[in-house]
Amino acid sequence: MNLLTVGTVAFDDIETPLGRAEKIVGGAATYISLAASYFVKHIHLVSVIGDDFPGETLDLLSAKGVDLRGLQVKEGEKSFFWAGKYHTDLNNRDTLDTQLNVLADFDPVLPAGYERSDFVMLGNLTPAVQMRVIEQLNTPPRLIAMDTMNFWMNTALDELKEVLKRVDCLIINDEEARQLSEEQSLVKAARKILTMGPRFLVIKKGEHGALLFYNSSIFFAPALPMAEVFDPTGAGDTFAGGFVGYLAQSGDLSFENMKRAVIYGSAMASFCVEKFGTERLRNLTQQEIKNRIAEFVELVNFDAQLE
Amino acid sequence: MNLLTVGTVAFDDIETPLGRAEKIVGGAATYISLAASYFVKHIHLVSVIGDDFPGETLDLLSAKGVDLRGLQVKEGEKSFFWAGKYHTDLNNRDTLDTQLNVLADFDPVLPAGYERSDFVMLGNLTPAVQMRVIEQLNTPPRLIAMDTMNFWMNTALDELKEVLKRVDCLIINDEEARQLSEEQSLVKAARKILTMGPRFLVIKKGEHGALLFYNSSIFFAPALPMAEVFDPTGAGDTFAGGFVGYLAQSGDLSFENMKRAVIYGSAMASFCVEKFGTERLRNLTQQEIKNRIAEFVELVNFDAQLE
Repeated sequence: MNLLTVGTVAFDDIETPLGRAEKIVGGAATYISLAASYFVKHIHLVSVIGDDFPGETLDLLSAKGVDLRGLQVKEGEKSFFWAGKYHTDLNNRDTLDTQLNVLADFDPVLPAGYERSDFVMLGNLTPAVQMRVIEQLNTPPRLIAMDTMNFWMNTALDELKEVLKRVDCLIINDEEARQLSEEQSLVKAARKILTMGPRFLVIKKGEHGALLFYNSSIFFAPALPMAEVFDPTGAGDTFAGGFVGYLAQSGDLSFENMKRAVIYGSAMASFCVEKFGTERLRNLTQQEIKNRIAEFVELVNFDAQLE
Repeated sequence: MNLLTVGTVAFDDIETPLGRAEKIVGGAATYISLAASYFVKHIHLVSVIGDDFPGETLDLLSAKGVDLRGLQVKEGEKSFFWAGKYHTDLNNRDTLDTQLNVLADFDPVLPAGYERSDFVMLGNLTPAVQMRVIEQLNTPPRLIAMDTMNFWMNTALDELKEVLKRVDCLIINDEEARQLSEEQSLVKAARKILTMGPRFLVIKKGEHGALLFYNSSIFFAPALPMAEVFDPTGAGDTFAGGFVGYLAQSGDLSFENMKRAVIYGSAMASFCVEKFGTERLRNLTQQEIKNRIAEFVELVNFDAQLE
């Protein structure tokens, strides 16, 4: 199985209560690819960068099996840049700066072969760019998953709704689900969103875990309680990468396996927040991942003793 | 096994986004007793009311096996009264009025026999009143659990810390845990609180579930995702009643059984919020409780397939 991922590859300035980092590598597609690389060996990355991007990171991605033929490099231009500062509780952040740079006129052209992808993860981008990717897929993938954000609900809702009709799985956070559905209750929000196109809906609640909705079934996975969270940046994308990566590895889209994928996504996200940026995701071992999954089992497992 | 519970028996005015109710029966000990009554047949209630309290509610409690010999009735005085209004998200509320009335000079005198209680649940009250109860227990109970609140941390921290040294289990919410420990991370907060006296700590996170801490082990139980929450009032006390009630029924204080107790507490709390005040807790059936527990199993159960 292979995985196509489309999203930003970028630089971030990040300030959290435990420190700050300047111009470190970030971007949705970076986190998604790194997380997924622990599960699937053929990852096709589609994105755009300037000529300011470190070759060391590109080499790392290549070494992890990420095919970079779809990564456009714009000579003389700068990569997408975001700067943000987290509040004390880490659940909220202020965006201090956003420079679109190469992203302003990004046209996601799929290289030969990418149009037959088994799994697709569309990172948070303009709905029009997400649609451009979908339109180039000439064989229906096993699963198309997507992320989006409030900004597109405010500025491009009609285009976003068209994209929603074309995807199998939407992965968004609680506030985004509330805005998209205009419902306060996440259960009601999910019911409404599941009529908009996706068969599966994942609602991420940050430190409060994630919910998977499918028909009338609900599955809940907690976030791992952490003594210290260094940097939440990329945790949502890392979740998505682990989730879709696990699905691509197993090739199993049953609800039971989707549950496991949510746990794997949560486990990958729990690594992500332990260090700044992508640092912790660069050199994980399969044993570390296995141990982390065991921690999740331990955390929620109880013997119900139902007579 | 019997259960001694001490706390308020009171009137509430409640306004939530879905409605309002005036002068309905509430109070920590009322919710605790009602929830526990589905698990344990001998409940000793210690509290104080005025002569304005409805006999119908007292009859209901008696019918559910609640011994009211410890419920003082002050002729010519009024019961404790609280009025509050919930915000749209139901996670926050404003207290509009608090009238201590009979609670102002409450002296919790244990009737004969109560001093030998197997399980004790101290509802949120002045630490001095909680200590007065502990001092009257002449045989060590199997378990003493307690609730408290920020107000006592601000106004009676030294007395509160003395009570903490005498209890086995503290049940508080996330903000209270942060204030008591002066730690933002709940994991660090728990580590610190477990050095203050209790062996077990439950941190309630409202709609985000509850965490049980014991030594270095953590167990997490979600709250049931609900389409509609009518009234969160009493949910925390109902959790405590279900939790301690289940422990008293089973008489088993192993960590495995404490996990089950957290699930039972969460299940009882999920009933509580479905209607205003104590209404939903008055006529539950054992089958409804069993079905609700099965929903929790369904919600978190996954097959890890760990090799």
